[in-house]
Amino acid sequence: VTSSPERDFVLAHLDDLHADLDAWLRIPSISADPAHSADVAYSAAWLAEALRRTGWPVVEIWPTPGAPAVFAEWRSADAGAPVALVYGHHDVQPVDPPELWVHPPFEPTRVDGPDGPELHARGAIDDKGNIAFHLLGMRAHLAATGRDTPAVTVKLLIEGEEESGSPHFAALLREHADRLACDVVVVSDTGMAAPDVPSAVTAMRGLADAEITLRGPAVDLHSGSFGGAVPNPLHAMAELLSTLHDDKGRVTLPGFYDKVRPLSDRERELMGRVPFDERAWLAGPAASRVATGEEGFSTLERIGARPTAEVNGMWGGYTGPGHKTIIPAEAHAKLTFRLVADQRPEDVAAQFHAWVEANLPEGIEADVHTPPGGVAPCVSDLDSPAMDALLRAIGQAFDTAPGEVLFTREGGSGPEADLVEHLGAPLLFLGAGLPTDRIHSPNERVLLPMLYRGAEAAAHLWRELASVRLR
Amino acid sequence: VTSSPERDFVLAHLDDLHADLDAWLRIPSISADPAHSADVAYSAAWLAEALRRTGWPVVEIWPTPGAPAVFAEWRSADAGAPVALVYGHHDVQPVDPPELWVHPPFEPTRVDGPDGPELHARGAIDDKGNIAFHLLGMRAHLAATGRDTPAVTVKLLIEGEEESGSPHFAALLREHADRLACDVVVVSDTGMAAPDVPSAVTAMRGLADAEITLRGPAVDLHSGSFGGAVPNPLHAMAELLSTLHDDKGRVTLPGFYDKVRPLSDRERELMGRVPFDERAWLAGPAASRVATGEEGFSTLERIGARPTAEVNGMWGGYTGPGHKTIIPAEAHAKLTFRLVADQRPEDVAAQFHAWVEANLPEGIEADVHTPPGGVAPCVSDLDSPAMDALLRAIGQAFDTAPGEVLFTREGGSGPEADLVEHLGAPLLFLGAGLPTDRIHSPNERVLLPMLYRGAEAAAHLWRELASVRLR
Repeated sequence: VTSSPERDFVLAHLDDLHADLDAWLRIPSISADPAHSADVAYSAAWLAEALRRTGWPVVEIWPTPGAPAVFAEWRSADAGAPVALVYGHHDVQPVDPPELWVHPPFEPTRVDGPDGPELHARGAIDDKGNIAFHLLGMRAHLAATGRDTPAVTVKLLIEGEEESGSPHFAALLREHADRLACDVVVVSDTGMAAPDVPSAVTAMRGLADAEITLRGPAVDLHSGSFGGAVPNPLHAMAELLSTLHDDKGRVTLPGFYDKVRPLSDRERELMGRVPFDERAWLAGPAASRVATGEEGFSTLERIGARPTAEVNGMWGGYTGPGHKTIIPAEAHAKLTFRLVADQRPEDVAAQFHAWVEANLPEGIEADVHTPPGGVAPCVSDLDSPAMDALLRAIGQAFDTAPGEVLFTREGGSGPEADLVEHLGAPLLFLGAGLPTDRIHSPNERVLLPMLYRGAEAAAHLWRELASVRLR
Repeated sequence: VTSSPERDFVLAHLDDLHADLDAWLRIPSISADPAHSADVAYSAAWLAEALRRTGWPVVEIWPTPGAPAVFAEWRSADAGAPVALVYGHHDVQPVDPPELWVHPPFEPTRVDGPDGPELHARGAIDDKGNIAFHLLGMRAHLAATGRDTPAVTVKLLIEGEEESGSPHFAALLREHADRLACDVVVVSDTGMAAPDVPSAVTAMRGLADAEITLRGPAVDLHSGSFGGAVPNPLHAMAELLSTLHDDKGRVTLPGFYDKVRPLSDRERELMGRVPFDERAWLAGPAASRVATGEEGFSTLERIGARPTAEVNGMWGGYTGPGHKTIIPAEAHAKLTFRLVADQRPEDVAAQFHAWVEANLPEGIEADVHTPPGGVAPCVSDLDSPAMDALLRAIGQAFDTAPGEVLFTREGGSGPEADLVEHLGAPLLFLGAGLPTDRIHSPNERVLLPMLYRGAEAAAHLWRELASVRLR
């Protein structure tokens, strides 16, 4: 086990980390619930105060039409030092169903687990834990390097609406573009493959959503008097959606794969190194009987590196108790598409319209709604100097050679693409979460050794980033 | 135009028919609405009183665990006279949406229409009009033939729960089997093809229903973290139901058509004679853009003479506003099958179970629920002496040769098969409705000349049935 001044400082100040995180986790900052809007605002105020207390010279609360964000900046005294912007969020998911929580979600509770001590609370890792480690990380960086200011200028942008779809985030980025200018974005809202597998996320999928209404008869019809003689929109919906994938599990929208950046042999080789126990994954997180999906790709590739189409909801006709013998006038479905680089949400919306038009059963009319916006996919360059710095920082924190740090991809979507688009800076991901942390579910937790290593990695990162050329 | 003593009597006593029907239609006997249970009971009492007033010697109200039925009997003095049982119902459909009624649904209103005077009210034809004409018809029969008792023994069984699925009807038939014994059943709950097209219904379809739940993951999953890698029950439902029909519009359940009695050339020729304006039907009753269905059959054949499968409801996943990016744990569908002679509902239930098992996508489990019971299809013998008597009666009422009376088939299902099964008697259908009467919809009406001819046809029928050998 390598030691370092950064590690020594972190391990000597764990009480500070715990005191801060416990206090913050007690604030139920659920952005999706209007009843908690004061808590979200209080969470922002608490974070601002904690930043000031730990020495950040510039700390501001930025209001939005929704929940406030927190901005902080600690400028490096070094002439020409690069600028890093940390992104995260201080709001949390709702807790329902509350009866499934073993410990109250807003009373942080220490639990001894098989991989070490855990802290259970809503937001323990998503995302308060991931932000809290930066407070200690910055202190460790300054103490270990003996500096008054960090080796790189560090900015923080911690929003309050991530769990509600970040509705005002792009506007916030536009409004404060000057203040947010940076050379690299460090997203701290993700995690690693396993406690003993240090890794860096390199991509998140984008998102396009669509809703479709199929119309048949003008009114609900009696299925005895009309059944078998007029089109049934529910049959049409089944027919249409059954063709959304071909027999190789590929999405059938015309042009859907045209802009998909294929996985290189090296990327596939790197993804293949990530340890993955499919049987345990099926029995646990996936809660599923089998793994399926696009032919020719592994489960991790399907989730992280390939685009998908999912029907999230479908309804029509009579859904109450007993039976009502109707041919309904309408059928409905909600779909989302997960996108990978270099797909664009607006292209997929157009492809979906064309696909519906081309596949609509006879006698059926379709209303297709594809809301503007969506989320673009984002991907990091594996070979950039910034990535080299990140791998060195993670390697030091995890006692691993930088070349042994693995690359993973997230299947989900977030506002990260907005950061790339508005700030024009490359993305790095540094997070202390684990796939087994039950984010968004009851009994969310953080594995404490991961949190400590996260703080140490952050401290290393500011030093390492100063040594590479970012612009 | 032929005259007859029966017609003369009917036309001389139209005021009686109108006074009775108006009074009865003012009673909102909606069996589906518990708030109207007293009205349904009052409707039964009103009918019983009207039957006594017009001379029926035996009139009884038969209670059920739900709404009461009315039984009446007028025994023929002729030794060995056959026995006819008239079936109908005194309950009516709900009226919603009330705002679409041009005239209040329970204030019978005369309206001059393109085909003659109409009476608008809920129940005007379904089924109070069809029963009301029997009151006058019996009086016309007795007056025209100069008899004190009818030429055949006539029984009436007018139930009060038909619009609620006749839940206690089979039990009622079992309980009163002796009193209901008969040689022929005359169902008065249907109609004819058009005002100038006298016709007799010869079949009704049966019904089997099924509900299916498909299960994928144990819980709703995040479609970003799992999308494209585990089975989605909504995709599975679409896939499964898209194979319910083949590319010729045939139902794919194994053995589904095995017991279907094929249409003879003569039956097809007879059905082909029924005037049917498909364009008007699509624009009006069918409220649909196109006619579809099983290849090789006309629309009237598809509705009346071929079995069908319809999905009546389908649901699963997120159906609220906006989007929720999940792979749901479950998907659901409700189906009904319309059956024709000689299919059996219990066979179809077994076929559905087998079909689901054979077509279930990988990684998906199915719960299939096929409730016991169902409705058997029923069909009349076109060449029986009873049918000959009916055609003569209709022919006389409509000034048409019996051979010109056409045959039609109803696509719907009712308790008629129960009558056949429990009473062991053949079925005839005599009703004065029209496809354009808007039964079950706002602004239900009866075309008054049809009602008058119905009364006359009933009067002829009792005389004609006495002249044929029924047992």
